[in-house]
Amino acid sequence: MKNLEVCLTPALLPLFNIEGSIVVVIDIFRATSSICYGIENGAEAIIPVAKVEECAAYREMGLDYLLAAERDGKVVDGFDFGNSPFSYTKEKVDGKTIVLTTTNGTHALHLSISAKRIVIGSFLNLTALCNWLKTQHDDILLVCAGWKNNFNLEDTLFAGAVAHQLDAGEYKHDDAAIAALDLYSLAKDDLNGYLKKTSHSERLKQLGIEADIAFCLNVDTTTAIPVLEGDRLVKLK
Amino acid sequence: MKNLEVCLTPALLPLFNIEGSIVVVIDIFRATSSICYGIENGAEAIIPVAKVEECAAYREMGLDYLLAAERDGKVVDGFDFGNSPFSYTKEKVDGKTIVLTTTNGTHALHLSISAKRIVIGSFLNLTALCNWLKTQHDDILLVCAGWKNNFNLEDTLFAGAVAHQLDAGEYKHDDAAIAALDLYSLAKDDLNGYLKKTSHSERLKQLGIEADIAFCLNVDTTTAIPVLEGDRLVKLK
Repeated sequence: MKNLEVCLTPALLPLFNIEGSIVVVIDIFRATSSICYGIENGAEAIIPVAKVEECAAYREMGLDYLLAAERDGKVVDGFDFGNSPFSYTKEKVDGKTIVLTTTNGTHALHLSISAKRIVIGSFLNLTALCNWLKTQHDDILLVCAGWKNNFNLEDTLFAGAVAHQLDAGEYKHDDAAIAALDLYSLAKDDLNGYLKKTSHSERLKQLGIEADIAFCLNVDTTTAIPVLEGDRLVKLK
Repeated sequence: MKNLEVCLTPALLPLFNIEGSIVVVIDIFRATSSICYGIENGAEAIIPVAKVEECAAYREMGLDYLLAAERDGKVVDGFDFGNSPFSYTKEKVDGKTIVLTTTNGTHALHLSISAKRIVIGSFLNLTALCNWLKTQHDDILLVCAGWKNNFNLEDTLFAGAVAHQLDAGEYKHDDAAIAALDLYSLAKDDLNGYLKKTSHSERLKQLGIEADIAFCLNVDTTTAIPVLEGDRLVKLK
């Protein structure tokens, strides 16, 4: 039986068998939602980098790349954009390569680098992602990016949504997967309402990005699955 | 408004303001349940130590102490007992001092050492603990011992039970507290049934300690609150 495990925050990654697993990186508000949207809209590649300076270094290379940097929910000064999904429309990203660094999402991705394969999940591509996962024979590790290494509900709910779609009979769930699944069962009929009581939702509200939040909770609006190849996220063929 | 936060595993403790909080250490299967039971049954003190060698060192001191050491769910060879609650009956512990080391519980306790105050919680003393917490004016941090630094459901459910008893209007919950509360609401009518699906329950079953598990899920069978004073847990006066 395959394992379906949930790593609730990147701080817990050393406890998991990353090497033997397909890792799904999850940062619902907003990095992985925006990555899914950008790849769906024809971005050629998204290059995730850990530091703002690495992102800035691409400027010197004279390439026609879009540079995106977010810290603490805001676009970093001097960058084209951050991680709002509305910056990843077809008009803006079609055919482009984007270099991206975010507070949590790209951090989780880099810590997962030894995985058999790394794909990107969000509510936008939930069913497409799950349909692909069903065809795979490796263990699955759902990595919640959380908020600065701590637990958050929105990423956990998405992990629960994945566990919900995959046939329970084929996977052994760890305790975190059981918790995620049960929390999702409570929240699924009104994700936005459920998340209104959370700390992060309040923080994002203060940033004036409620439209982003609503957008990131739209289910199955895209079908592209971003996959890491080398140092870049591209559309899974 | 006071904070009520849940630290889901000891690995996440560096993210919290331990110094400003009352910490409740939670290791339902079985360390904190046994500590509550032992203090209720007249143990003069329980000295938590991190290492088996520290526990063994007390043997050389010629004191009439009981030495208890558990690793991976089993009594360590050469020790009086481990962390089964049935070793902490009045007959065995009344008037005694016990030196205890366990896989997870004493680990979590030592990592919380800078707290304003450290108390011990379990389903056995749930209501007594909550009634005392209601009289306190500091932030509360519920520290789940987990299993080898990873998340587990039984400790999280207990954190939810505490959040459930404390008046929600007086505390600001972090996301982990919200999750714990919601999971507890799903499980509270049949804790044992709910936990049957978890990994740890299976592990404990293999150890042949199902009677211990059932015992540790009895609610409000004791009223003593173990509190750390210096290097020892004693009954809160």
